[in-house]
Amino acid sequence: MEVRLLACTKLDLNYPLVPGLTELDSVVAHAISMCYRTTPSKNAILKCLKNGHTSVFEHISFTFDIEGISRVCLAQLTRHRIASYTVESQRFVDYTKKLVGVVVPPSISSPKCSGNGFDVTFHIFNDVTKEAFRAYEELVSNGVKPEDARFILPQATTTNLVMTINARSLFNFFNQRLDKRAQWEIRELAQRMLRIVKELAPITFSQYRETGGDRKGADN
Amino acid sequence: MEVRLLACTKLDLNYPLVPGLTELDSVVAHAISMCYRTTPSKNAILKCLKNGHTSVFEHISFTFDIEGISRVCLAQLTRHRIASYTVESQRFVDYTKKLVGVVVPPSISSPKCSGNGFDVTFHIFNDVTKEAFRAYEELVSNGVKPEDARFILPQATTTNLVMTINARSLFNFFNQRLDKRAQWEIRELAQRMLRIVKELAPITFSQYRETGGDRKGADN
Amino acid sequence: MEVRLLACTKLDLNYPLVPGLTELDSVVAHAISMCYRTTPSKNAILKCLKNGHTSVFEHISFTFDIEGISRVCLAQLTRHRIASYTVESQRFVDYTKKLVGVVVPPSISSPKCSGNGFDVTFHIFNDVTKEAFRAYEELVSNGVKPEDARFILPQATTTNLVMTINARSLFNFFNQRLDKRAQWEIRELAQRMLRIVKELAPITFSQYRETGGDRKGADN
Amino acid sequence: MEVRLLACTKLDLNYPLVPGLTELDSVVAHAISMCYRTTPSKNAILKCLKNGHTSVFEHISFTFDIEGISRVCLAQLTRHRIASYTVESQRFVDYTKKLVGVVVPPSISSPKCSGNGFDVTFHIFNDVTKEAFRAYEELVSNGVKPEDARFILPQATTTNLVMTINARSLFNFFNQRLDKRAQWEIRELAQRMLRIVKELAPITFSQYRETGGDRKGADN
Repeated sequence: MEVRLLACTKLDLNYPLVPGLTELDSVVAHAISMCYRTTPSKNAILKCLKNGHTSVFEHISFTFDIEGISRVCLAQLTRHRIASYTVESQRFVDYTKKLVGVVVPPSISSPKCSGNGFDVTFHIFNDVTKEAFRAYEELVSNGVKPEDARFILPQATTTNLVMTINARSLFNFFNQRLDKRAQWEIRELAQRMLRIVKELAPITFSQYRETGGDRKGADN
Repeated sequence: MEVRLLACTKLDLNYPLVPGLTELDSVVAHAISMCYRTTPSKNAILKCLKNGHTSVFEHISFTFDIEGISRVCLAQLTRHRIASYTVESQRFVDYTKKLVGVVVPPSISSPKCSGNGFDVTFHIFNDVTKEAFRAYEELVSNGVKPEDARFILPQATTTNLVMTINARSLFNFFNQRLDKRAQWEIRELAQRMLRIVKELAPITFSQYRETGGDRKGADN
Repeated sequence: MEVRLLACTKLDLNYPLVPGLTELDSVVAHAISMCYRTTPSKNAILKCLKNGHTSVFEHISFTFDIEGISRVCLAQLTRHRIASYTVESQRFVDYTKKLVGVVVPPSISSPKCSGNGFDVTFHIFNDVTKEAFRAYEELVSNGVKPEDARFILPQATTTNLVMTINARSLFNFFNQRLDKRAQWEIRELAQRMLRIVKELAPITFSQYRETGGDRKGADN
Repeated sequence: MEVRLLACTKLDLNYPLVPGLTELDSVVAHAISMCYRTTPSKNAILKCLKNGHTSVFEHISFTFDIEGISRVCLAQLTRHRIASYTVESQRFVDYTKKLVGVVVPPSISSPKCSGNGFDVTFHIFNDVTKEAFRAYEELVSNGVKPEDARFILPQATTTNLVMTINARSLFNFFNQRLDKRAQWEIRELAQRMLRIVKELAPITFSQYRETGGDRKGADN
């Protein structure tokens, strides 16, 4: 999995950076200040976080270039409806010509308790997924369109996408997906996204740590 | 694929059916009449359709019980964000204990031009997907959790879901998915949904036919 | 203010009522049961509420016919974006021909501490709003269109609308607007809506009381 | 009315500007290129516009600092639900202490056909709105809270807000609000917003002109 920032909100040059705040936190602070006709400040952001007045965090957003997540992870990700997705099309991309991979769950590639567990589970996985890609090629060479041949590909197949999401919707995403009970792949994705946004807007995301969300994270 | 209506909007008993309209079309007609302080009527609905005043169609919605679509189709379906989905969890359902199937694309199960095409493509498909399910069972019996074992399952694997969508969002869904260029499986889903809603709200959906949407359907 | 149910979700005849549940709670129970392949039940609903698995409550929705709220209240109401509104048009309704009223805040019509407070504030309010409507008529009679003449009308002016909202979005609405800190008019609206939906879906809304929301209600 | 850009999307430094494109158009071009695994280009954007593949335009957004629009205009504006608003609070801002104004419709301040029309309509408007503000102060001085006193203020009263909206949602906004049939105040707002975004993303907004939207603008 690779997660890179493709774009994010920037403050217009005509508005000053708020002392002690990054560019993105400054955008939030300016928005709050207009609501209450007060001076923009770090404290105003913290107060909004505390009071659950989170709509002001919709004014900053982040565009991620995400590569190499499984279709399993994609299905979970796109359930977050307050976000924008541009996903690599499996209908029109022909995998006999373009590179594609698979995501191997750690419990399969390196099971903890394995004596011989590793050999067994990894080999099963490896054999079956390889065979599926070989069959995909055979179907395509028999005249089946990629959009139909893909039905045979495993859910482990990787995909790439561009995703844009605002900070408020990220709060919800982090609350659910940084949690220890979250599935490992989307949790890793959430952690990588947090690392990126926390540097850009440290006050906005001050309540999040990679090890858990705000509300549910206490006991993890 | 099976598509059944689980629930839909009903008019409250204190409001009259509008002459010539079904219960659901009557809800729309009442909503329009309040906007303009006019008498509810069929013509008012047609006028809104003509003028693109489509927000009034958000007041009626439909809940579908959908069974046996592929994960491929599910991925396309859930891209429609103005709708509600409750999807059978692959994390928590153990397919070694519960029934599951695969969707076979017609181009693979019964290719048009086949002499021996049928044998080739169907057998490839059948062998590989069967093998994948056998491997899933083997992984689970080796201690891999269903949520990780599912990575090996093909995208053809069926899933079930409950989906609620309002008429306006359905317009958009039908515009895209009844179109001949739409992928065959989601197109079939759209056609089945249209058949159901058209009976319940014939005026609201008067511009849709199973063979195509309104704007793009002309040349198909 | 008058709030009436115009429409709501009904369970299709082909699905059974779940023992002990109303029609609307049954829709939710069926949706949950498909997600986990379990038997629909009241307990399953309560578990979803407890775990914050609230997306299943999007499958039932309510359409309200709301009359006589102020433009102040309307502005607050329509900030709830996950809902559908059909609002009486002030552009096209001519108030010289149609009935319209004003909402008088209780603190103005019957101030608590009044000796002569009542006389003062109510008379100010009454005189100025009456004068505004008289001026509206005069503007219209001087050739100004209703859509421009309305700029002179007070924010107390009443309006009517049809609003559709699903149960999950109502949770959010109730959390904010049943609270004692909520503004009195929208709080009254929330209370009236709660009374209606609680009768229709008592388990779904079991955590709400007219005197407050779930999370913030503790100290009220 | 004043409309200024407070913030907008910027391309991350690790991604190149696409030849011939601005920073914001480049973000869109990169998103498209990932979907199809093609080289980012201006033509790819134009093709998406032509085919109605508009979800890719959700990746860029704009934050406007809007001052001095009427409450009438605000009510129309916030009906656009796919956007984020932070509105100056009338509950907590006390207009006896903070500056506020009114928006006078041109048909009232400078009616075309006036001989004496001007005197009549402007004076009516001016007298009544001034009286309303005087009464507001009197109510507040009699102990009525600003949140209740504001019921007496005219809908012409100005307000300030911060609004964030992505390019796709702006397409919809422009389609409706640049149209000649749109109400004059929100039309002016749309024109000012278009002027700003067209400079930042000229290809994305190439189909819009200040005199009208794309589809409906032809015959106006």
